[in-house]
Formats: sequence, structure tokens, C-alpha cells
Amino acid sequence: MKKLIIASTSTLHGGSYLDYLLPTLQEHFKGCTTLLFVPYARPGGITHDEYTAKAAEVFAKINITVKGIHEYENPVIATENAEAIFTGGGNTFLLVTQLYKTGVMDAIEKAVEKGTPYLGTSAGSNICGLTMNTTNDMPIIYPPSFQTLGLVPFNINPHYLDPMPDSKHMGETRETRIKEFHQFNPQPVLGLREGSWLEVQGSTIILRGDLQARLFRKEQEPEEIATNTDISWLK
Amino acid sequence: MKKLIIASTSTLHGGSYLDYLLPTLQEHFKGCTTLLFVPYARPGGITHDEYTAKAAEVFAKINITVKGIHEYENPVIATENAEAIFTGGGNTFLLVTQLYKTGVMDAIEKAVEKGTPYLGTSAGSNICGLTMNTTNDMPIIYPPSFQTLGLVPFNINPHYLDPMPDSKHMGETRETRIKEFHQFNPQPVLGLREGSWLEVQGSTIILRGDLQARLFRKEQEPEEIATNTDISWLK
Repeated sequence: MKKLIIASTSTLHGGSYLDYLLPTLQEHFKGCTTLLFVPYARPGGITHDEYTAKAAEVFAKINITVKGIHEYENPVIATENAEAIFTGGGNTFLLVTQLYKTGVMDAIEKAVEKGTPYLGTSAGSNICGLTMNTTNDMPIIYPPSFQTLGLVPFNINPHYLDPMPDSKHMGETRETRIKEFHQFNPQPVLGLREGSWLEVQGSTIILRGDLQARLFRKEQEPEEIATNTDISWLK
Repeated sequence: MKKLIIASTSTLHGGSYLDYLLPTLQEHFKGCTTLLFVPYARPGGITHDEYTAKAAEVFAKINITVKGIHEYENPVIATENAEAIFTGGGNTFLLVTQLYKTGVMDAIEKAVEKGTPYLGTSAGSNICGLTMNTTNDMPIIYPPSFQTLGLVPFNINPHYLDPMPDSKHMGETRETRIKEFHQFNPQPVLGLREGSWLEVQGSTIILRGDLQARLFRKEQEPEEIATNTDISWLK
């Protein structure tokens, strides 16, 4: 059975890495003693080793040993054999490029379908949607495709940000950008505010965290989804 | 001789479309009575006709008649024959996709090299750089390449935004994103704040407008460039 946590962010303002999620992760990864970390998104350009060490430090608190996928000779086999998988945030273009280059994109999809518990934050959540067309990241590298895992039947917009009423900056708001997306793409987009996550168990998808999420559908007004809502109907 | 205005934005906060640039454009397009408008970036998803009407209204004030490139049967020939070219802002992914699909990318490059005066704002400025890897836009469509016109030998980051010290949002700052870009790409990136533009005359490139620009180079500290500085040396 599919078992996913799809989180908007790894870190809340004023908090430390993954701390707000730790009780949830303890439950999510119950029975696992090891975890495969996918550091490909390299936030701020840190190395795979540095990023993996950061994840390992947190998971040590719940007695889970972390190993980076880059430490294995064959990353596809490492994915197939993983007890649990966590894809960290950073740059989605870089992450997706690496996932295709290594063959790990397919391998994660298969592992998740057969029941390996998965955690994604930020870019690692973006790839759970149908495509990466609704990432907020800068396109620093050209991926072979914008197609992603499709573990949920819609797109994710992590770090969803409401328009800032006092802004004098003339760049587009997040809402305007997602409306532009819908001029060319049919699938719903779920804007996950920082602190929100999706809990996926089989075909059930529930919004968790303290906040509402903002749902955008083609040719419809955006709507707010209350926390703890079952959104398994969404596609 | 190459003759370009590469502007960060079309509209300043509280201003109207292109008003702050109008005296500059009057000089830039001196002697031209017609202008070819490239509306492919479709800001907010508006139609090519709507977008062209918006540009036409402004250029009427300086006695220039605007026609949209989509109104021509052959957009490449339209570009070759244009007296002047203006590529408007919107979504860079959409703009670049359309420019490749129609063959207009090459045609603009050739027209500019032979001396057709060009104006770009926002997405229309992004494409003047070597690549579109430093756009701020959402990747709503998958372009055949991130390669762009290379009319200046570096990349542009339009709508450059300084970090907001009070922000509680955990998404990356613009500076962080550009640093990530430099992990994988060698060329300098010029962050043009809203109200700044580059004036290109042949091989001379000068920063114009009231503000400084922020220059990012691989493995170097970012630096501020004063307005009216000649940056022809930058590559």
C-alpha cells in the first residue's frame, strides 16, 4: 500500500530541520531502521555528503540510520532495496535532471507503489505530482522532461505564498502564475502553505498541519481546503 | 549596429504601462513609424490581440503604429521586414517555446544583428541573455531548449529583488537561487532592479535608470554596479 508524506517545507520559520514533522515521521517510518536519502536537489548548492549528514542528524533522534543514494554504486538497486525513502528539497530542476539521468525516477515510483514509505519536502514533494510545471524554483539546469512521479493525480505547489498586499514589486503573485499554468494544463494544483503536508495511505489523501491549503482548478475560482480534509476525490 | 533596450520591467509600481521609459523609447525608435510586437509571453494568459492592443495604445503616443506578430501569415518574414521589434513580458517558458516553434528566435537574432532596434521588457529581456536559466517565471510549459538570443554575453535576472529581512517565508531568496545557478553555469548574471535597463549600442552596454544593478559572478562575491556605468567589459 502506498504510504507518503508530502510536505510543503522541511523547516518552519524559527524552527530546526524537520522538527515540526518528527512525531509524524516516527509514526510514518515505524518499523524502519534505515532510510535512503536522495540529496540530488542540493539546496544552496551544498554537496550530497553535507546534505545527507544534515538528514542523518535528525533521523538519529528517532533511531533511523540514513545513507545517501550517492553512496551506492547502483542507485536504482539501492532504491529497490530501501526500507524507506526521503527526497529532500532544493532545486527541482536539478533533482529531476538527476532522477532521470540515474534511472531513479522510475525506481522510486515502483518502490512507492509496492509500499516503501516515502517522505518528500519541497522539491521532493513537487515530484510527487503529475509534473514539475508548478515548482517555484529557478531553472538552473535543463531536465529531459517536466514529467514527474504522479503519485498523486494533481500538481503540488510547495511553499505556497499568499499575495503580499503591501508589495511594490511588479513580479507576478503565486496565484497569477498558477492561473497562467491553467491556460495550458488541465490538472488541479494544490498550494501547500509552509507547515502543511499531505498524508497518503493507499488511495486516501488527507491534508495535515495547522493551516488550510489553496486549491486551484482550471476555469474555477480558487478555494480553501480545511486541514484534516480527505481530498481523495481530487483529480 | 545592434541597438537594444533591455528593461527589467514594463511598469513601475504606481505607474502605467511603459510610461517611465517613453522618453527613452522615443529616442530609441527615432525614425520608425511602425513596430512589430511579439506578444507570445501572454502575461496572466491574456490573448495575443489583447496584449498587442495594450502595446499599441502606448506607442500611439509617440506616433508609432504597432502590429502583432501573430497577425502575419509568416512571422519569420514579418520579423525580417520589421522596422522595430518589441518583445513584451509575461511567461519566459511560454515565450521561448513559441519563439522556437515559429522560427522567430533565429529571425530576431538576425534582425537585431543587422540593426533593427529592439526593446525587451521582463521575459522579453530575459531572452536577450545567453540562456533563460535565470528567469523567475513558473515553468508552465516545456520549451525545446533554455538557450536564448545571446545578444549580451551574460544572463539577465529581471525584476531583481533584494532579500526581505522581515520575511518568515522559507523559500530561497533571489541571491540564493542565482548562487545555485553558478554551481552549474559559468556566465555572469546581472540582476536588474525594476526601473533599470541596459542600453546596448553596437558593442557598448550601459546601465540606465535610477538604481544600481547587482552583478553575480561564479565564485565571486556579488557587487553593486552604479547607474550609467559602461559594462561592455562584462562576460
